[in-house]
Amino acid sequence: MRILATETKNEIEKTVTCEGWINSRRDHGKLIFFDLRDRSGLLQIVSKDSNLDIRPEDVVRVRGKVVKRPDNLVNPNLETGSIELQAENVEILSKAAELPFDIGGKDLDLQLPTLLDFRALTLRHPKVKSIFKVQEAIMEGFRRAAQALEATEVFVPTISYSSTEGGAEIFKIDYYGHKAFMIQSPQLYKQMMIPIFERVYLISHAYRAEPSVTTRHLSESIQLDLELGFLEFEELLDSLERIGSETLKYASQKCSDILKEFNVDPPKVGGKIPRLKMREAQEIIYKTTGRDNRKEPDLTPEDEKDISAWALKEHGSDFVTITHYPTKKRAFYSHPDPKNPEFSLSYDLIFKGVEILSGSKRIHDYDKLVEVIVERGMNPKDFSMYLQAFKYGMPPHGGFSFGLERLTMKILDLVNVREASLFPRDMNRIDILLSSQPDAKKKTSK
Amino acid sequence: MRILATETKNEIEKTVTCEGWINSRRDHGKLIFFDLRDRSGLLQIVSKDSNLDIRPEDVVRVRGKVVKRPDNLVNPNLETGSIELQAENVEILSKAAELPFDIGGKDLDLQLPTLLDFRALTLRHPKVKSIFKVQEAIMEGFRRAAQALEATEVFVPTISYSSTEGGAEIFKIDYYGHKAFMIQSPQLYKQMMIPIFERVYLISHAYRAEPSVTTRHLSESIQLDLELGFLEFEELLDSLERIGSETLKYASQKCSDILKEFNVDPPKVGGKIPRLKMREAQEIIYKTTGRDNRKEPDLTPEDEKDISAWALKEHGSDFVTITHYPTKKRAFYSHPDPKNPEFSLSYDLIFKGVEILSGSKRIHDYDKLVEVIVERGMNPKDFSMYLQAFKYGMPPHGGFSFGLERLTMKILDLVNVREASLFPRDMNRIDILLSSQPDAKKKTSK
Repeated sequence: MRILATETKNEIEKTVTCEGWINSRRDHGKLIFFDLRDRSGLLQIVSKDSNLDIRPEDVVRVRGKVVKRPDNLVNPNLETGSIELQAENVEILSKAAELPFDIGGKDLDLQLPTLLDFRALTLRHPKVKSIFKVQEAIMEGFRRAAQALEATEVFVPTISYSSTEGGAEIFKIDYYGHKAFMIQSPQLYKQMMIPIFERVYLISHAYRAEPSVTTRHLSESIQLDLELGFLEFEELLDSLERIGSETLKYASQKCSDILKEFNVDPPKVGGKIPRLKMREAQEIIYKTTGRDNRKEPDLTPEDEKDISAWALKEHGSDFVTITHYPTKKRAFYSHPDPKNPEFSLSYDLIFKGVEILSGSKRIHDYDKLVEVIVERGMNPKDFSMYLQAFKYGMPPHGGFSFGLERLTMKILDLVNVREASLFPRDMNRIDILLSSQPDAKKKTSK
Repeated sequence: MRILATETKNEIEKTVTCEGWINSRRDHGKLIFFDLRDRSGLLQIVSKDSNLDIRPEDVVRVRGKVVKRPDNLVNPNLETGSIELQAENVEILSKAAELPFDIGGKDLDLQLPTLLDFRALTLRHPKVKSIFKVQEAIMEGFRRAAQALEATEVFVPTISYSSTEGGAEIFKIDYYGHKAFMIQSPQLYKQMMIPIFERVYLISHAYRAEPSVTTRHLSESIQLDLELGFLEFEELLDSLERIGSETLKYASQKCSDILKEFNVDPPKVGGKIPRLKMREAQEIIYKTTGRDNRKEPDLTPEDEKDISAWALKEHGSDFVTITHYPTKKRAFYSHPDPKNPEFSLSYDLIFKGVEILSGSKRIHDYDKLVEVIVERGMNPKDFSMYLQAFKYGMPPHGGFSFGLERLTMKILDLVNVREASLFPRDMNRIDILLSSQPDAKKKTSK
């Protein structure tokens, strides 16, 4: 009966069986020391069999006795650091090929292309793996926060017959001889859920045929979405801030050890998250830095950093909410501010200098929505099912969304969003580099 | 301040505000009665304003006093059946167009094409909507059961550079001028996760270009997956049965009212779920029905019904596990039974006459896997990232998966799987019928 590596510390002087991977091997004369890695952590094993044929990443089953280490050999940085397993029998379950690089060290110091070329291998490194434990915790935190708002979880399709928001960055799919598209976001579907559930959340894929390679964009990403009916602008802002801060708080508490390993602080939430209109933010940036972007239609990346610095200094908050972006700069369904339609009832939640959540109050009037679609040069016929939801009674509503990978990247202060995706897709890569695919351009399905 | 329809029963003799949709309207002389529908349920409202211009699906805000109904007018079938709201003010938040059919009745008796043509409207009907509350509960039940097995939730991509399992039923996507594919299942990715997390679960989309229209198939569906490392065949069967029965038990307990409304019984689990090899099942079917399928390579739909009837009669169980399907009939990664390689260490969990979960112990030996890929006429180069995971130490493992829509269909005894998908995709339909799309074949993205 197998027990986990970290469970051995409760079995001192007993004979146990562990299974896992050889993480590293050190030969000391006639003794072989190796670390066994399983999903719980590491365990030092010592074997007297100097002929033992094992190497890193072999999968083994080890039977042996758990003993205390002498005081001077205790490793305080390891959960099992006060014990070791004296191997009586080592059985090889799966033999590993020779590794292209060492993955037994504390850090995995590889260039990004190598990290991705050997993704099925490099993900095994505990520090790389831990990124995805944080990602799991973000998802769980989001679900809990959404459920606390009484939202229903829904599942919507990713194949669509029209683009979500226009634009050229859209993947085409051959759908039984018809042309169809991969959704750029589940936005339209979640709005259609308002008359059914009033409050919904969903986890979807979002596809963007970004024509360039940047550190922040993926061609396929996981998007978390929330949409709420019968809420007005101020209540939507409350929900935005609640979901954003509670999701991050949950993940950083659950993964506090990992945050420490990545040398990042848990999110600071002061009293209330400060709220500024975009123009007010630009005014503050002008006053505090002298940079005059007061006529610009959006915040620049530098602006987002500076307004975050201001929020931290003045309000002790890693978060700041910016509202009222120009209507023309936002998606067609964003509701213009009735007091000044040039600006919209839109909002971004900025966390440590980067926008992490984005959304708006939506247009809920059918006629107005048709008008805006036409104004933007699109065809209402392409939105017939979406418009159907508005035709038969749609209440005021709004929502927001965020990208799972980008949030994971931000909370751990990673350099490239690809590090926060198990198998990142961009214009050059689907697992392997596209140019290196066998007959990539000519290939047909078998 | 809005309160929900069902919350009014705690506010008798108080003045409250409710918001929702007009579910139905009945005029009685100078009085107008209407039912307000919100996410909590229905509430009867009475108005003395005989000029009130409201019709079904209008969205309204009603202010009024909650009063007890006379005893003889109490409706015991409605949570708010002992009260009504005397409207003082009715404000219209959104006007609905005239409905193409009545959706205010207890059942929504429409043909499937109409149900789907007006999907954004028909989903509002409480009985249609409740299908998706069951679906949400299935998902929650699955997550709880998977987390109880200490599995990590992972997020894998849907765009791939090769097909998952060969076959022609695969959607092609134009990926920056390269040809790529939508995954038929997340199978290969979840196996690649074994050396990282040992136990994983995931919720993914699965794309199958089914060339025919059946009641059981969707072109895009939601797939739930689990994969477990270091478990042997019998332990995998334990997990299969545990996940299957616990998921269904959770959903049917949480949604017991809905099951009653659909006239279906909650799943019966006897003591232990009976386990049969496929050949044993065929033998029992021969003995009990006289139908001789003992040489057939698979169970027919009729066989699955008959063996379920046997399991219910002999073991008091709605579930029965069938193992050892012919190796050739299963996916390439299925592990042959070492005792008789003609049959595989595969399994299906049958529930009330239909297979709901399917899986196998997997081949974990690198050389053997390459050999099988070649034998099946596929190219190992198309599986390079997948094979990488096996090259560097892969333990024994196995898993299973199920389709969310099909399970929802089965638990509610629906006739067509399309009823269990918010927006079903098949060869004829993406929201609207493909033939009725504007310039469907010529359309390009804008």
